[in-house]
Amino acid sequence: MIHTITSRANIRIKLAISLQKPSSCRKRHRFLMEGPKFVSDHLTRNGSVDFIAVSQEASDETLLLARMADNSGHSVIQIPAEIFSCISNTGTPQGIVAICPIPDHSVSDLFTGKTVLILDKVADPGNAGTAVRSAAAFGCSGVVFLKGSAFPWSPKVTRSAAGLNSSIPICEVNDLAAIRKLFPNYLILGAESTGSQMDDLLQTINQPVCLVTGSEAHGLSEVSATALDGKISIPMAAGVESLNAGVSASILLSGLFRKSS
Amino acid sequence: MIHTITSRANIRIKLAISLQKPSSCRKRHRFLMEGPKFVSDHLTRNGSVDFIAVSQEASDETLLLARMADNSGHSVIQIPAEIFSCISNTGTPQGIVAICPIPDHSVSDLFTGKTVLILDKVADPGNAGTAVRSAAAFGCSGVVFLKGSAFPWSPKVTRSAAGLNSSIPICEVNDLAAIRKLFPNYLILGAESTGSQMDDLLQTINQPVCLVTGSEAHGLSEVSATALDGKISIPMAAGVESLNAGVSASILLSGLFRKSS
Repeated sequence: MIHTITSRANIRIKLAISLQKPSSCRKRHRFLMEGPKFVSDHLTRNGSVDFIAVSQEASDETLLLARMADNSGHSVIQIPAEIFSCISNTGTPQGIVAICPIPDHSVSDLFTGKTVLILDKVADPGNAGTAVRSAAAFGCSGVVFLKGSAFPWSPKVTRSAAGLNSSIPICEVNDLAAIRKLFPNYLILGAESTGSQMDDLLQTINQPVCLVTGSEAHGLSEVSATALDGKISIPMAAGVESLNAGVSASILLSGLFRKSS
Repeated sequence: MIHTITSRANIRIKLAISLQKPSSCRKRHRFLMEGPKFVSDHLTRNGSVDFIAVSQEASDETLLLARMADNSGHSVIQIPAEIFSCISNTGTPQGIVAICPIPDHSVSDLFTGKTVLILDKVADPGNAGTAVRSAAAFGCSGVVFLKGSAFPWSPKVTRSAAGLNSSIPICEVNDLAAIRKLFPNYLILGAESTGSQMDDLLQTINQPVCLVTGSEAHGLSEVSATALDGKISIPMAAGVESLNAGVSASILLSGLFRKSS
């Protein structure tokens, strides 16, 4: 049964509102999955949910989704639109949000496939989320967020990742040297414009790969650069400096996926 | 000489503030290029500028850029930080913005190279801008915005395009049928998950290509689908529905560029 809650002092409302802040997500070990599409996908993947909040002014379709979630045993609360807008991260709230536990993964859960993506101080949540979404699309077994990157489950990362940060294993790790020591069978390649051209390099690879991608502003960090086996680049037209960081990670991951599949 | 203007009623201030709205950009045929990096790049490319506004609280580096622009004959005004924040499209304004004429291109200016990108109702300005940035990086000779797409010179598109919407030729066109009639030598390929796999298709192409990419929510529009010569797809892992629209355009453009270079 769907309960209506109208008090902002309610403990679940307070929790949900607090999760706008990455620091609260980290402290409470919870994050927000917002919007009917992402909530529905998350439920379809059997993702964990603490509870679901639906706005009293949600569309009929969204209310139906909330009722279906309630019928399948999830805890669902209905709340006034003005309270919902305090939980929502979007300018035009879509009326439903799931409050979910952050998935727990040890770093070895990530290194089980042919490709792992490593984000090196990718602080922009849009770029980090885009890269996570492409990592899922191109069959990566996990994504490492090195120190200095965005918080992997902030509302903005979740939105850019199309909610796939709840399905692909993600870990936060201090530095690349630790990865190198733990998983010596992986070839660690940094994405950089001075690297070997991707099509040439992809021909020669016959072991699993960690693809390390840096931020748009600063590229690979110095400390990461010392732990690389090599560098890989995307051919570009003369006179253009760089691509969006999420895009360059995606192009290289697509190349790795097509090569290995 | 840099003049200081403190009145919001000043005609140039009013113009600059109005350009936050795509409808005003269209009416005044002007757009905003914001931030020291984009302004500096635009000047380096000899892009047209009406005038440059710099905040009184801009950093020393940004003030230096404004002085250099002034020295090279551009009109520069200095304005209070609170007025600057009304012009700025970002949460943390970087203190400099150029007010620029929208570049004029006829559609035939765009169809001069091996690849043209066509955005089919890509309404999200972030995705449209990302695609424009990649089109420039991968040597496209132009980008067509079909009706229903974002406004090509809105502040958000400009930001996502890293300002390259001022350098790559762009035109707004009503529908794909017009393109087909005007440029019959171009192979028109729609990006769609049911299309031929990109690596197979790229092998067979020996004519210039129009790559048509749709929105994330709706894919290619029905009217565009009837004007295609074929469809092209990006191989993905099972169970993942789609990529970010800017990312999928970028992956295909990168493939076309690497094939032809």
